Amino acid sequence: MSEAIDLAEKLATFSEHFSPRTVTQFNDCDVMVAKLKGEFIWHKHDETDDFFFVLKGQLDIELRDKTVALGPGQIYVVPRGVEHRPVAREEVHILLIEPTGTPNTGDARTAAPRKLA
Amino acid sequence: MSEAIDLAEKLATFSEHFSPRTVTQFNDCDVMVAKLKGEFIWHKHDETDDFFFVLKGQLDIELRDKTVALGPGQIYVVPRGVEHRPVAREEVHILLIEPTGTPNTGDARTAAPRKLA
Repeated sequence: MSEAIDLAEKLATFSEHFSPRTVTQFNDCDVMVAKLKGEFIWHKHDETDDFFFVLKGQLDIELRDKTVALGPGQIYVVPRGVEHRPVAREEVHILLIEPTGTPNTGDARTAAPRKLA
Repeated sequence: MSEAIDLAEKLATFSEHFSPRTVTQFNDCDVMVAKLKGEFIWHKHDETDDFFFVLKGQLDIELRDKTVALGPGQIYVVPRGVEHRPVAREEVHILLIEPTGTPNTGDARTAAPRKLA
């Protein structure tokens, strides 16, 4: 990857929700953008912490005992093993970083395929 | 870390340049914010790719054979082993992600101490 990666430009290339697109990789991690709208499923990642950075919109990350509300410029890390459900009442754009190959649902059988933007 | 992390709020807690502050950790990586102004030193990280995300301002990442210009919402990954020099003509705010313990100059003897924001 030899040039600047513009996240807004990458986000403009697709419209599907809950379908992350990899924009680059570093240190065996995928850097992804995604559009969210509505409720995702309850899930957890047993081996990896889950990094969310909101670029646009308001995202609720529901945990079993509370809800973390995130707006633009805010980050939350869901610790490994902790059940969570992202909920976007309107469209939200996020930056995600995960070790390459991590299934977005916590389960390879139900995960969205990894796609490039 | 149990609540949203607001990057602008973290950036408001310090004014030093080239002195990254860790705001959270995930998967054995430090998530940091930094303020840059002026020219950093030429350096490289032999073992780790270097992730830059510009939050505010215009950052030039000089490489030996070209310059990558980054503005807000843009990312660049300097591959491991590649010499680079960040140059900020005006103050720039960035998000950095590195494996915990990576020296910011590529050399533990000259690195800025890791600080929390």
